[in-house]
Amino acid sequence: MFTRSLDPTFSDTDALGHINNTRIPVWFEFARNDICQLFTPDLDPQKWVLILARIEVEYRAELYFNAPIEIRTGVSRIGSSSFTVSQALYQHGRLGAEGKTVMIHYDHQAKQAKTIPDDVRAALESHLIDAAAFAS
Amino acid sequence: MFTRSLDPTFSDTDALGHINNTRIPVWFEFARNDICQLFTPDLDPQKWVLILARIEVEYRAELYFNAPIEIRTGVSRIGSSSFTVSQALYQHGRLGAEGKTVMIHYDHQAKQAKTIPDDVRAALESHLIDAAAFAS
Amino acid sequence: MFTRSLDPTFSDTDALGHINNTRIPVWFEFARNDICQLFTPDLDPQKWVLILARIEVEYRAELYFNAPIEIRTGVSRIGSSSFTVSQALYQHGRLGAEGKTVMIHYDHQAKQAKTIPDDVRAALESHLIDAAAFAS
Amino acid sequence: MFTRSLDPTFSDTDALGHINNTRIPVWFEFARNDICQLFTPDLDPQKWVLILARIEVEYRAELYFNAPIEIRTGVSRIGSSSFTVSQALYQHGRLGAEGKTVMIHYDHQAKQAKTIPDDVRAALESHLIDAAAFAS
Repeated sequence: MFTRSLDPTFSDTDALGHINNTRIPVWFEFARNDICQLFTPDLDPQKWVLILARIEVEYRAELYFNAPIEIRTGVSRIGSSSFTVSQALYQHGRLGAEGKTVMIHYDHQAKQAKTIPDDVRAALESHLIDAAAFAS
Repeated sequence: MFTRSLDPTFSDTDALGHINNTRIPVWFEFARNDICQLFTPDLDPQKWVLILARIEVEYRAELYFNAPIEIRTGVSRIGSSSFTVSQALYQHGRLGAEGKTVMIHYDHQAKQAKTIPDDVRAALESHLIDAAAFAS
Repeated sequence: MFTRSLDPTFSDTDALGHINNTRIPVWFEFARNDICQLFTPDLDPQKWVLILARIEVEYRAELYFNAPIEIRTGVSRIGSSSFTVSQALYQHGRLGAEGKTVMIHYDHQAKQAKTIPDDVRAALESHLIDAAAFAS
Repeated sequence: MFTRSLDPTFSDTDALGHINNTRIPVWFEFARNDICQLFTPDLDPQKWVLILARIEVEYRAELYFNAPIEIRTGVSRIGSSSFTVSQALYQHGRLGAEGKTVMIHYDHQAKQAKTIPDDVRAALESHLIDAAAFAS
């Protein structure tokens, strides 16, 4: 499991006074940098081998501008070329949002899915979490 | 069903050369303005009575900077206080993404869900779509 | 002069209840698509020949979520390889923000400025505006 | 002078392969949290007393996704109700962008500028920098 923290920016809020819902997918993408680095160690976009198939986010509590956000990121499923990232986001120690992202190991030139290499699969496996027990 | 169109902005793209995945939830929120207006006709944020419980997005095709986006928005489920919005996004007539959003009719002062009023329920019903047949 | 209009999205607002200041540079970038098209008619990012040197934005009035935005875009200076775009943004017919953007005709491979070709210069000249009289 | 660092998110990039220009005003707003805290120590948006009058950004070098950003923030001018924040942004120790922001101490209820209180003025003065020597 990876952990990242961030401070919100004023532009992350909306007219209801809280963090806008559309910022959570961005923050989860930010925290998935650690997963992407397993595939592209230097994070050079020209060597990118991932593509998104699906995201889902459950909003659990209002999030506020003036306190840090902590994001936990783990792997909850590994297929032959795709895998699922599970994420949970906390503020003041309270669960604020949960997310699942289906990512595909992808050849951007040939525009087709590729089998996840064994070494990367082993790295992903070392971050496997129990999705049912993950966010609590 | 509601239909909205928009032209992408250069900042909507990412280093892979296409529209970044995190922009789709923003575009779907943009297109849900028409749904929000059924609850708050003048769209004044101080009178807001909606909150998001959940979003999901399926990415179906790469989207490009240099062509307009068309978004179709309908209602696929109506409960007592919550409902589901189904959306589909097209470019060059091709399906690019589908989304579902669970929204709750909500009292932001009392911080609790409220039954959807009959007149708004009737308005939502007039935009009911068949989710299975919606995006094709 | 070019004119574009857009409807704000809820995520464009912030906790003060108005449009967040950081959205204005994005909306001005959106409206500069018409300028970029003079250089790259099909707006293909792989053929891009522009880079930004500088932006400035003056905030003149609060902007609201629930009314359309109109943006006027003109050219206020043309140099040998750089030029300045002047923009003004209105809501309910009232000036909300003004912006100036210095853009450079640029070779992204060689990483150096290039003289603006004569035909593009002529096109830019046809959109020259009197900056002093532009926003009022 | 305040210093903040951040890691870019993939959505901060654009189709040219670098950080999009519109993200810099957002990052500068993020780093101005430290200035805002001098006015509103608990950063509660309901107690906000600042408004933006003007921003300018000079783009000095391309910025990349895969390396941290460092932002330095100081005060370069203090008037009776307004002041100017100067900021510089670095990646790999190289200057990437400079910014100036004119902020106004503002009563959001009365919608008018207010004199900066003496204790806040003293705090701002302790962060005065020499703008000419600031970014190098």
